[in-house]
Amino acid sequence: MKINSERLWQTHMTAAEMTEADSPYTRRSFTHEYREMRGWLADAFQQAGLEVNTDAAGNLLALYEGSLSGGKSVGVGSHTDTVPCGGRFDGVSGVLAFLEVVRSMKEHGYRPKKNIVGIDFLAEEPSEFRLSCIGSRLATGNFNEEMLQLTHRDTGQRLGDAVCEWGGDLSRLAPGSALFETSNFDGFLELHIEQGPILEKKQLDVGLVTGICSVTRFDFVITGKADHAGNTPMDMRSDAVAAATKLIGEIYDIGGEMLARKPYFTATVGRIDVLPNGSNVIAEKVYFTLDIRSESNDLVTECLERIFTRERQIAQQTATSIDHVKISQSRPSISDPFLLSVLEDQAKKLGLQYTRMLSGAGHDAAYMSTIMPMAMIFVPCRKGISHAAAEYSSKEQLAKGTNLLLHALVALTA
Amino acid sequence: MKINSERLWQTHMTAAEMTEADSPYTRRSFTHEYREMRGWLADAFQQAGLEVNTDAAGNLLALYEGSLSGGKSVGVGSHTDTVPCGGRFDGVSGVLAFLEVVRSMKEHGYRPKKNIVGIDFLAEEPSEFRLSCIGSRLATGNFNEEMLQLTHRDTGQRLGDAVCEWGGDLSRLAPGSALFETSNFDGFLELHIEQGPILEKKQLDVGLVTGICSVTRFDFVITGKADHAGNTPMDMRSDAVAAATKLIGEIYDIGGEMLARKPYFTATVGRIDVLPNGSNVIAEKVYFTLDIRSESNDLVTECLERIFTRERQIAQQTATSIDHVKISQSRPSISDPFLLSVLEDQAKKLGLQYTRMLSGAGHDAAYMSTIMPMAMIFVPCRKGISHAAAEYSSKEQLAKGTNLLLHALVALTA
Repeated sequence: MKINSERLWQTHMTAAEMTEADSPYTRRSFTHEYREMRGWLADAFQQAGLEVNTDAAGNLLALYEGSLSGGKSVGVGSHTDTVPCGGRFDGVSGVLAFLEVVRSMKEHGYRPKKNIVGIDFLAEEPSEFRLSCIGSRLATGNFNEEMLQLTHRDTGQRLGDAVCEWGGDLSRLAPGSALFETSNFDGFLELHIEQGPILEKKQLDVGLVTGICSVTRFDFVITGKADHAGNTPMDMRSDAVAAATKLIGEIYDIGGEMLARKPYFTATVGRIDVLPNGSNVIAEKVYFTLDIRSESNDLVTECLERIFTRERQIAQQTATSIDHVKISQSRPSISDPFLLSVLEDQAKKLGLQYTRMLSGAGHDAAYMSTIMPMAMIFVPCRKGISHAAAEYSSKEQLAKGTNLLLHALVALTA
Repeated sequence: MKINSERLWQTHMTAAEMTEADSPYTRRSFTHEYREMRGWLADAFQQAGLEVNTDAAGNLLALYEGSLSGGKSVGVGSHTDTVPCGGRFDGVSGVLAFLEVVRSMKEHGYRPKKNIVGIDFLAEEPSEFRLSCIGSRLATGNFNEEMLQLTHRDTGQRLGDAVCEWGGDLSRLAPGSALFETSNFDGFLELHIEQGPILEKKQLDVGLVTGICSVTRFDFVITGKADHAGNTPMDMRSDAVAAATKLIGEIYDIGGEMLARKPYFTATVGRIDVLPNGSNVIAEKVYFTLDIRSESNDLVTECLERIFTRERQIAQQTATSIDHVKISQSRPSISDPFLLSVLEDQAKKLGLQYTRMLSGAGHDAAYMSTIMPMAMIFVPCRKGISHAAAEYSSKEQLAKGTNLLLHALVALTA
């Protein structure tokens, strides 16, 4: 059994047309383009003979019912929204792979014994509600009431009301409680582009994701004193830029040492804001955000302790004050060994070049892993580029990953 | 002979009222408030018996004619415009000190033999024409035709037309040629607040400025690759922030070594801009400006060479590319030894605690030094704060500096 790679590619190109015309590829959650995408998807699922529903969290579900009445289910899916000016593959590939898998199963006359439930999760990308993974958070009980009260940046609409508008039902959602009858599920699989350079560099066909790293974010504020760059001697300054660049340099050094000890660790400072930001004024304030990803909580803790020690020393050396505040800290999600072994067996049978690897990016699968076994398939993408129009996975690369998904699902449901 | 410290303070408070009401203290060049200030000043000069004129560069001149016909002149002055939300002393103190000196001379019946020419230079602060020291540049021939074609940020007016509107005469201005009959001038004195912390820390009354540092500015652009902070391993990145923070750290280290060898040297990075500046995106671009002040051209050259060497190494280490472009490079201005000795003698006679020091900030006096002997008097200011509403020099501090100016002018013109 093989999927139809040409058809899989064509559905990608069709989905790509559902974009804000002037900024390809933009299909933001809760917008007209997103509604168009979901309408197209529901039609395609129905035409493939699936039973289509929206759950209380606003996720679009498509059921391929198994032949065993009362049999268990396997979940599979991803998301179809994009970041502003994103790409044609991040998220949507996982949903279109499910569609292609089901179409291929039907064409080949394969009827699973267990149910296969495709899921298009609502609003995975950070949305105008300043929250990511809305559908998977809500469906798995990983939310609190405050999240439902978040308001839309432009319209002021409450998130809870938006979820209802997209088919959700707040009366059936409760923090700490999952929508899915988890005991009925054997597990969840998500296919996604890698959004990183490893598979391409190693010339591999697929990555078998062994876990999704924790994401830890801290905001730092360095406070110095705004003085004249000409008339304030260097040894009489309180220069926030001098302190910040020293601290960020140390963060990268410490991050490099952590990396040398463990398979996956990243420390990144991507945002820096300086005040007053004048070329002839010593900086009064520097704000920056530290983003740490790791599979190991211990390593994150050790790294943070070392950073905070250096922070105190640098503040003293530079006569500045430095504060930090935790923005978020998630736990790493570990993939299920059995699901991974199924993926590995099938990859071998299909002759795919693969590696086990971690995901540094968050995914709906991380929330699903809190209620059922989870594993992911990564498809290589060109130069690791993602969240940009240049994001690209070839027809062949998508086909190989989707064939693996097909055969893993067969192995799990036959 | 002594100046009237109370009257000097009151003129400062009167001038402070000529501000944009909602953002004290703002008296931008070429505005209504600036015109009000100049009108008040011209009246005050006339009431003090001075001959008031505007020169071809738009500078307001006030002549206290000496008793020797055909005698030489001594220039004295500063500027009356402010930065947005500036203070009550930067610039205007030098002009009001001249006014107070003349008033005191008249009251004490002192008639100089030589002429004393007070100058309120047009538009010293960086203006909406993106140029500083307009009046002193034009009057000393330190300009080119392109500068006159600069347009106002908001109105689009050409600078040349604005100068004419403020009493100037382009037909009498020529690059390389001074308006002043320089052979008739013995020199120029400028009193200014220090805009730095040295005098206050050393508990001194005045600073005798031995020179005005060169200002060298370079813009740096670091180009990396915008990748996902989670999925791009640290050793496979081209991270513009990693490169920039390393380079800026080295700049401060090299600057510190220069400082250890010479009396005056500053290296400052006050402006940093990061693109795309997202906390989960590896930075593609970092832009920053380096500002170097020194009395020594050789030291600036050596510092830049070392920075550029490290720049190449860091670009290689971090897989980024780094470019720099020179924005401006002025020469240091050396004060006149004779004028300095006159200031020193008078400071001793007045019992003032003083030090010889350099100015890291630029002043109209730097342009005047290109056509005649120059020296400056610095008055201490609280905590070195300048270009802010909190800028402050006390009545007593202003009086001490202005008394020194009075006695130096007497020594030069009696």
